[in-house]
Amino acid sequence: MHVTSEKHLDGGVLEREFTLGEVPGILWTSASEPPAAAPLILLGHPPLGLDRMYPRLAARARQAVADGFAAATIELPGSGVRPRVAATEEARADLRRAMAAGEPVADDVVDRLILPLVEQAVPEWRAALDALLALPGIGGPVGYSGGVISVGVRLAAVEPRVEAAVLFAGSFVPRAVFEEARRVTIPLHVLLQWDDEGNDRQASLDLFDAFGSEEKSLHANMGGHTGVPESAGEGAARFFARHLK
Amino acid sequence: MHVTSEKHLDGGVLEREFTLGEVPGILWTSASEPPAAAPLILLGHPPLGLDRMYPRLAARARQAVADGFAAATIELPGSGVRPRVAATEEARADLRRAMAAGEPVADDVVDRLILPLVEQAVPEWRAALDALLALPGIGGPVGYSGGVISVGVRLAAVEPRVEAAVLFAGSFVPRAVFEEARRVTIPLHVLLQWDDEGNDRQASLDLFDAFGSEEKSLHANMGGHTGVPESAGEGAARFFARHLK
Repeated sequence: MHVTSEKHLDGGVLEREFTLGEVPGILWTSASEPPAAAPLILLGHPPLGLDRMYPRLAARARQAVADGFAAATIELPGSGVRPRVAATEEARADLRRAMAAGEPVADDVVDRLILPLVEQAVPEWRAALDALLALPGIGGPVGYSGGVISVGVRLAAVEPRVEAAVLFAGSFVPRAVFEEARRVTIPLHVLLQWDDEGNDRQASLDLFDAFGSEEKSLHANMGGHTGVPESAGEGAARFFARHLK
Repeated sequence: MHVTSEKHLDGGVLEREFTLGEVPGILWTSASEPPAAAPLILLGHPPLGLDRMYPRLAARARQAVADGFAAATIELPGSGVRPRVAATEEARADLRRAMAAGEPVADDVVDRLILPLVEQAVPEWRAALDALLALPGIGGPVGYSGGVISVGVRLAAVEPRVEAAVLFAGSFVPRAVFEEARRVTIPLHVLLQWDDEGNDRQASLDLFDAFGSEEKSLHANMGGHTGVPESAGEGAARFFARHLK
């Protein structure tokens, strides 16, 4: 892990950009040395590029640091500064065509768009975890928050260091992920935007139902994909405080 | 309104039992004179009798008073110390028979059980509001919380002094109430127990969808009817703090 830049944000937050192999990422910690190792929240995001997502990620990170956590994120495969993946671009074009035509999105389009992303991204997040947890001032446990829900499901299912997750039910979900959801047993806090134009509400409810976790809660709010109200963010923050501290 | 007894509970809470005509009720306020009139939360409950419900009601009331509210409840028609209503008892017996036989509960059974209760209870809650808001130290705005959801829907639809409601989607809902839900426009915080054995989950989701409120949120937690987790109570308390203060 190479730290490529370091800057201080308002509110006593230290922001470090890093690369891990060819994967860029950002780490946010308290600028004042914390008394002990802080638990870590991995900030998931849609595959739109870290640069474009930066304002929202930084806001979530500041909140996490204010709540006593470290926070980190990495660039997803095929987006931002990373090379495009031809098959993914093709699947995305097929998805847009179907949505523009008002047609249902075929299962194979969702599979081609999401499954390779999960296959490549999850090992990268796990490698980032190895590197991040080796830094002084960052300990466990680890939470995962938001982003492409299928990535969150896989991480929650396979990565034992992730002990709690806030998932955002707002993207297409391959059928295989419903099966995988049954193997998730960590506490989950699931956010759903009730009128999310690009999301299948019933599929989100079915996915919530499928999770094997004994402790899971669903929080549905009014509004579209990007309209998550402030109170929902606070509820998610309290969920992490209950489970990671 | 006649205060029939008065006692001090731990935590600086004054509990007053009262009667309003033939309807008994309980009022909880801060024992120390609050600086200004406190907003009021009406505590709804299932028609099992105030005596039986007292421990849970008192716990909710203490929390409300600790949060700066006054809290009050009244006995529902046909339950507790009030005379039984023959038609309601008959409908309840029909309901139990259907459930014991594992049969679907007919719409007319739900109508006979719930609609007369709503018709009688809602004017009583409104009369209680008149009396309670005339007391020193109790002001507005007013919130309604929990209990038979059809009573909450009607109160939210017709009583302008009720400015926010926490509704518990855990009882049978007559078809007419879905129509009434469209006329509700106040902020709503709806609780749903995902595995509530006596509740129709899909009907609860449909009812949530039907509410006309611009601000409404659904919070589903694992477990049965009485298994609402502590964190859900905290979320509801923060909802009232946001809307009634």
